[in-house]
Amino acid sequence: MTYTIKFLPYESSVQVEENENLIRAAMEAGVHINASCGGSGVCGKCKVLIEAGEVDGGVSEHLSEEDHAQGYRLACKASVISDLTVRIPVESEMETSRLNRQTGARHTAKAMHMDVEELKENGLFIPPVEKIYLELDPAMEGDNQADVTRIINHLRLHHDEHRLTMDLPLMRKVPDIIREKNFKVTATIVRPVRKDGKNRITNIEAGDTSDRNFAIAVDIGTTTVYGQVLDLHSGKVLAQHGEFNGQISYGEDVISRIIFTEKGDGLEVLHDKVVETINKVIGKIITKAGVNCYEVSTITLAGNSTMTQLLLNIKPTYIRKDPYVPASIMYPPFLAKEIHLDLPEHTIALIYPGVSSYVGGDIIAGVMAAGMYQSSELTLYMDIGTNAEIVIGHQDWMVCTAASAGPAFEGGGVKYGMRATKGAIEDFSIDPETYEPMIITVGNVKAKGICGSGLITLAAKLLETGVIDSRGKFNQSLETPRIRQTDDIWEYVLVYKEDTQIERDITITEPDLDNLIRAKGAMYSAALTLLEEIGLSIQDVERIILAGGFGSYVDLESAITIGLLPEIEPDKVTYLGNGSLLGCKTNCLTNSLRRNVAEVVNMMTNFELASTPSYMDHYMGALFLPHTELNYFPKVKARLEALRK
Amino acid sequence: MTYTIKFLPYESSVQVEENENLIRAAMEAGVHINASCGGSGVCGKCKVLIEAGEVDGGVSEHLSEEDHAQGYRLACKASVISDLTVRIPVESEMETSRLNRQTGARHTAKAMHMDVEELKENGLFIPPVEKIYLELDPAMEGDNQADVTRIINHLRLHHDEHRLTMDLPLMRKVPDIIREKNFKVTATIVRPVRKDGKNRITNIEAGDTSDRNFAIAVDIGTTTVYGQVLDLHSGKVLAQHGEFNGQISYGEDVISRIIFTEKGDGLEVLHDKVVETINKVIGKIITKAGVNCYEVSTITLAGNSTMTQLLLNIKPTYIRKDPYVPASIMYPPFLAKEIHLDLPEHTIALIYPGVSSYVGGDIIAGVMAAGMYQSSELTLYMDIGTNAEIVIGHQDWMVCTAASAGPAFEGGGVKYGMRATKGAIEDFSIDPETYEPMIITVGNVKAKGICGSGLITLAAKLLETGVIDSRGKFNQSLETPRIRQTDDIWEYVLVYKEDTQIERDITITEPDLDNLIRAKGAMYSAALTLLEEIGLSIQDVERIILAGGFGSYVDLESAITIGLLPEIEPDKVTYLGNGSLLGCKTNCLTNSLRRNVAEVVNMMTNFELASTPSYMDHYMGALFLPHTELNYFPKVKARLEALRK
Repeated sequence: MTYTIKFLPYESSVQVEENENLIRAAMEAGVHINASCGGSGVCGKCKVLIEAGEVDGGVSEHLSEEDHAQGYRLACKASVISDLTVRIPVESEMETSRLNRQTGARHTAKAMHMDVEELKENGLFIPPVEKIYLELDPAMEGDNQADVTRIINHLRLHHDEHRLTMDLPLMRKVPDIIREKNFKVTATIVRPVRKDGKNRITNIEAGDTSDRNFAIAVDIGTTTVYGQVLDLHSGKVLAQHGEFNGQISYGEDVISRIIFTEKGDGLEVLHDKVVETINKVIGKIITKAGVNCYEVSTITLAGNSTMTQLLLNIKPTYIRKDPYVPASIMYPPFLAKEIHLDLPEHTIALIYPGVSSYVGGDIIAGVMAAGMYQSSELTLYMDIGTNAEIVIGHQDWMVCTAASAGPAFEGGGVKYGMRATKGAIEDFSIDPETYEPMIITVGNVKAKGICGSGLITLAAKLLETGVIDSRGKFNQSLETPRIRQTDDIWEYVLVYKEDTQIERDITITEPDLDNLIRAKGAMYSAALTLLEEIGLSIQDVERIILAGGFGSYVDLESAITIGLLPEIEPDKVTYLGNGSLLGCKTNCLTNSLRRNVAEVVNMMTNFELASTPSYMDHYMGALFLPHTELNYFPKVKARLEALRK
Repeated sequence: MTYTIKFLPYESSVQVEENENLIRAAMEAGVHINASCGGSGVCGKCKVLIEAGEVDGGVSEHLSEEDHAQGYRLACKASVISDLTVRIPVESEMETSRLNRQTGARHTAKAMHMDVEELKENGLFIPPVEKIYLELDPAMEGDNQADVTRIINHLRLHHDEHRLTMDLPLMRKVPDIIREKNFKVTATIVRPVRKDGKNRITNIEAGDTSDRNFAIAVDIGTTTVYGQVLDLHSGKVLAQHGEFNGQISYGEDVISRIIFTEKGDGLEVLHDKVVETINKVIGKIITKAGVNCYEVSTITLAGNSTMTQLLLNIKPTYIRKDPYVPASIMYPPFLAKEIHLDLPEHTIALIYPGVSSYVGGDIIAGVMAAGMYQSSELTLYMDIGTNAEIVIGHQDWMVCTAASAGPAFEGGGVKYGMRATKGAIEDFSIDPETYEPMIITVGNVKAKGICGSGLITLAAKLLETGVIDSRGKFNQSLETPRIRQTDDIWEYVLVYKEDTQIERDITITEPDLDNLIRAKGAMYSAALTLLEEIGLSIQDVERIILAGGFGSYVDLESAITIGLLPEIEPDKVTYLGNGSLLGCKTNCLTNSLRRNVAEVVNMMTNFELASTPSYMDHYMGALFLPHTELNYFPKVKARLEALRK
């Protein structure tokens, strides 16, 4: 059920789901309500008048009985249960025209899901591992062919299966298994990656077990490892779980982990740690899904090049040493037990290939999941994070690179930065007259800090209202106590300590903004450099795909305003989520994709920004909000000019 | 140097090599000389007169000074050093016409060798494992492709090598090895069995090691394990060695070994034992050849189906149980270390596929080595032994079967039977008037017993001279003390105890002959059954190949006379020797053969004699010397009739 909410005097409307929080609805509509407690209801500033319709809740000690009778409610505590007309008590006398020059409705990127039904309709739901039930003729006088031959011949004759092979360890089990239920068996067949490759029989079970066929998808992040159990019959995700990568205590980032491997048995330690983590994830998800590990036919994993090499127990030293060389980009299918996963000896493991030391399998997985290699639209794929990866291209070609953006997007290098967990300021608007903030936190609790997507919105709103300039410096002449200097550093107070969980004022500082600018500058200039290297311009980009934990909640308009994303229609931006995990999942469900992986890797050209001279120029130019070259951002330029008239 | 020896009064001549023993020369010429001490010089009966030319030795206390001065010598102690005219003092007055009705010159099968030079000339010397030296471009800024990718791309561009793969364990070593000698490496590439298969890179070594590339060929016999080291550059055998199969103490034959595996850890024990034996052989031959085990790129093994399954650690139970089912016939390439061979982790192992429980990889290896699958001649391949295997066919089709011949050919079930070692009576002739024997033993020492090929010749000569009849029964009316009855058993005394090593008379008995008849009957009737099943007759056979330890010294005429081999020109019979070992060697030297193996296995139809009704009839008919159906042996029939006129 959706309802329409009209906000007065802004004349702005928004459609929201039933039970949506009213302050979030206002944020969606691009309407400012003073609110500094993050939606926790403690500041009592978000008083609104319900002129038509009904809300649930919104009653508070901050409202007098009279207010309540008149229809006032606290927006942050009110849930939508009907169409509404809501009046915001505007403290200053703003012109509506001015209001409407404000940013419009909030847009986050639409999420991309893999639609199993669509795969099925297109005949693409062909898992790479199939189970086939066989009622073989029992051996007898006159038909005493070898047990393995009997299975292979039956598959040939009755199931049109050819180019079949079987490895020794399975052959050892066949003679007894085949006789256990009088020559009725289920064969597990792994499809080849290449069309002309071999169909590998990886397991033979007595009787009919063909309905129990499962796969596991695993994203090996530097920080977190996520896994899913998939039912290869329905295509459904049966369970999902994430754990912190057990390598974390040996180094936060890939470089420190590589350094750790260079001492003593460091490689073995890190290999063991990530395997331990994956095994923990596997244990939890198969239990949750009611699957026996013996029923797991295949596992697909993806991670960056360092994570991949550590998992495979391959020394990663040369990844961090000039000229930054990974051991390999393609890896053959292998047995899960070869890398010590707690899976039976018939489980086949696949790991996504990477392109270079810093554009790894997680990115290829995302590119595959996003279907970018099948699209005719020029697509910009961005995995935003400390180590940002960018891929540009379409069905005919692709280029990629990695940029070191620094930790700002993950809340690092920001005074009150934090990850996007409970209490993180994730949404923000500012009254252009009073410079009072409207703040929403994750979980609607008292604020604890600022997360990455919040930081982007903060910077955009501060820029739009002229609180900061294009270099990220505060306008010291504005009349508000929220702009102040502490220890020689200029900052804006987002939440005073009484409304926080940390008993300190939460502020955004010039150094914070500087870090953000460097981060977004690195990303944008990386994209610009790639495009220029292939003779294209940033305006040619037709579609953007955002991957990574970051990106799901980032306000696209804000991201464009600060110059993180190129100017593009919001509906051309897609949020992929954990592209790496999604790629692994897709790989488990459709062999056709799997067959394209090598092709995609081969069509992808890697650029090392360090050896691309134009990158540094582009980077310097990108250290402004949105950019020194405002022609890249005509709409932002027009809006900013209009707002400051 | 060869010399011509003319024997008088027989007017029979023979060409022999320098230093040939004179009694052997006589045997070759089909000339009888009384001699019962096996050629050891102790009986002094083989006195001959050298009428022209000179011999070395032949002087003995059995010769008077006068004899010596006249030119008499003991044939068994005389070596040929010039052309000779030798007169045999014939004690009885035989007609020359009668003499000349005797068997002609002795014929053994010509031996088949694999000619590496011929392989080279035909462009077939393409070992399945090649080493290629690569001078890679060192990684640098602007060219930082992955290490493995660098190797693969170089092979593609500079060596026209495609469809390359590399397994994980090797990838783990590449980053360090590639840098050890500044990106100069040697790649070991294993060719695919199928033309469209993958080229597998199995090893990367620093620097140029391309001249050190070796293979090992191993025949896993139930009794003996033989191995050879091959230089894959020259194609030469560098060393060879055999050891008794360590499984022997757990059972003489395959059935008793299978039974042993069915108790407790019997399978592991027998697997360990044969692996231990192979490792002992490998250790000896690589030491002898001056090869480091690390330089062994590949190993090919062949054995019967039970030996194969024991080596691969696959339960052989169903091989011995009706309906006699092996686990598999084809086995994929695997790593030598997977079956615990003392070879490095990059050594690829191949094992010859079999056809059925009793026609195994050793036979396929022999068939491949003999080139039978490429010939247009209808060939009969016989591996003569306790378990005899027979293959019939040519380039278009092949049929095969196994027959249980019993141990007679290996000296078993024969009163004085023994293996063909020193002291075994291996050659024999008999004076048609006096019934006195001429005996030659292996090593020209006093007799100890009778070996398989000796037994065949004995039976043939006894038959020709009418000492036995076509049922193998002695002619009790002949006037010679050598035919006698002991403990109700009729026998012929070959050597009186004073001329033996065992201090007992060495005789051949009716039960011995009975066992021989059953053995040869099983083999011949198996061939007859196969031919009849495919609508052919025994006269259609154009070529015979004898494999197995047996066969190298068997007198072909005798083998035909007793009805073991069909009647055929001696020069159409080839002796292959250890066909299994030869097949393994061939497999190591030429990939083209290797690619035909699956084809040969697939074109071969296996017959189980037990379920072929006509077999028993044929068998009964074959229990005569040479056969009840004398039309199968027109020449033997004619000769026997002429002799008995």
